[in-house]
Amino acid sequence: MKHKAHRIIRIGIPSGDHYAMGPGKADLLEAIMETGSISAAGRKLSMSYRRAWLLVDEMNKCFRGPLVHARLGGAHGGGADVTELGKEALQKYRELQVLAWEAVKQPYKHYVHLLGDPLE
Amino acid sequence: MKHKAHRIIRIGIPSGDHYAMGPGKADLLEAIMETGSISAAGRKLSMSYRRAWLLVDEMNKCFRGPLVHARLGGAHGGGADVTELGKEALQKYRELQVLAWEAVKQPYKHYVHLLGDPLE
Repeated sequence: MKHKAHRIIRIGIPSGDHYAMGPGKADLLEAIMETGSISAAGRKLSMSYRRAWLLVDEMNKCFRGPLVHARLGGAHGGGADVTELGKEALQKYRELQVLAWEAVKQPYKHYVHLLGDPLE
Repeated sequence: MKHKAHRIIRIGIPSGDHYAMGPGKADLLEAIMETGSISAAGRKLSMSYRRAWLLVDEMNKCFRGPLVHARLGGAHGGGADVTELGKEALQKYRELQVLAWEAVKQPYKHYVHLLGDPLE
């Protein structure tokens, strides 16, 4: 149900004209935690290297401190760590998603009775 | 706060690969109720005539019956009515938006403490 819920409710955290956090950025943060690398995380999400870096840069600038710390060079050609602030930003975003979905999942089930068969 | 809430939470009602309802379609339905015309509603929302018709067509096909009934010809060059099903689909969608926002507005206020100053 997780995947479907995320298609139904999308939460974004605005910061000026930007979004500090949203579904794509949260998935990217999670993938960086798993892979230890921005480029590997981007590949995992079928996201271009450039896009993954842009999203990380935007997050790092919108929060009160960086969410991702990129280690340059070294034996493994760098790597990236999600900071404590990044972990908190991710966890609390996931909590917002859960709260929103818990609130609408029953009325949503009623709503779909208004629909016909899905289009091809 | 309405405008801000709608920027933070976006709810879509999937139907196959399409969305039967979402923020843009709901606003369009509301504008059709107000103006009695698909083209006037589109203008009000700075939406092209073509796009307004496409969204109406998609809604009409995704629900179990049409949400908008277009009257062709006549002294005023046609016009459009939102059906009873359309009014129900709009009202219940607005209820979903309110429920989701009520659930997250307090934790959202805490979340923004993680942000820095908005980017220019």
